[in-house]
Amino acid sequence: MAADREAKLQLVHRHIRAFPDFPKKGILFRDICPILKDPAALTAVTDLFEEHVRKNHPQVDLIVGLDARGFLFGPLLAQRLGVGFVLVRKKGKLPGPTLSVLYDLEYGKAEAEIQDDSVAPGQKILLIDDLLATGGTLYAACELMKKQQAEILGCMVIIELKELNGIEKVKPHSLFSLIQY
Amino acid sequence: MAADREAKLQLVHRHIRAFPDFPKKGILFRDICPILKDPAALTAVTDLFEEHVRKNHPQVDLIVGLDARGFLFGPLLAQRLGVGFVLVRKKGKLPGPTLSVLYDLEYGKAEAEIQDDSVAPGQKILLIDDLLATGGTLYAACELMKKQQAEILGCMVIIELKELNGIEKVKPHSLFSLIQY
Repeated sequence: MAADREAKLQLVHRHIRAFPDFPKKGILFRDICPILKDPAALTAVTDLFEEHVRKNHPQVDLIVGLDARGFLFGPLLAQRLGVGFVLVRKKGKLPGPTLSVLYDLEYGKAEAEIQDDSVAPGQKILLIDDLLATGGTLYAACELMKKQQAEILGCMVIIELKELNGIEKVKPHSLFSLIQY
Repeated sequence: MAADREAKLQLVHRHIRAFPDFPKKGILFRDICPILKDPAALTAVTDLFEEHVRKNHPQVDLIVGLDARGFLFGPLLAQRLGVGFVLVRKKGKLPGPTLSVLYDLEYGKAEAEIQDDSVAPGQKILLIDDLLATGGTLYAACELMKKQQAEILGCMVIIELKELNGIEKVKPHSLFSLIQY
């Protein structure tokens, strides 16, 4: 099982590319598009997330994914687990009554939003995104979940950029990452 | 089989909500968030798309999904079919060399972009999004695929807003929709 897990992690790792100076000078951008392009790599990501959740958070009610790359991985995981998926979107994209939180991005400011009936008080949720950088977006999503009185079980990302120390922004919630740079 | 298909379509239908005057006055917005929230409804959507592809386009090489709601459904379908998934994004989101196309939106103008190595010449692709309105975004995505010399097998959406006649914009490519309003 450990060897199987290691092989899956290596497969995922081989499908992440780095582009210097994107979206601006000095930023090394980690690109997850090759994971999506390869069915085996995408299956491996979903397997690794599923294994983590079944072992550590079997009580999860909902997977909550962040706009837009969290949408690529969240519904796959939610379907594996047999639970629902909830969207955290950039401001102005969701119809009906919403809640929003303003936050700092790695490259500016933004506002995250959810529909006010997306999560019920006490529901156990896990947040998912492709990458943790400074943690601004995940922090905002956690704040939205707290406003809804959801129980946050933890956050999950494929890639954690350790030098940006986003894990501090996410505390006291746990962070699970597949790959660290 | 036909009864099973009808039951799945009804399940999907029951998980679409309508919000008047969003994102602006006079627009009736069809909201697919409840589909994501219900694992059975999301499975039904994927089943219906998969059935269509296996029957009509078994030779497909890649599923191409549109930013951002196409990302919710495309990877699920791609995994079912055992093929890769490619992202069409809003301008400025993709690193590395890209191709872009300017297009008219229902509510303004925008630019769609792909990585220039995302599709190889001759690859057979299917485009997916949640909804067809005026067809501007799908048209732009088709233009990007033509620039790549991909072979477009067709377009797929959950919802087609027939009175906006987006199907004309997508021609000569075929359109498959689960629900029509």
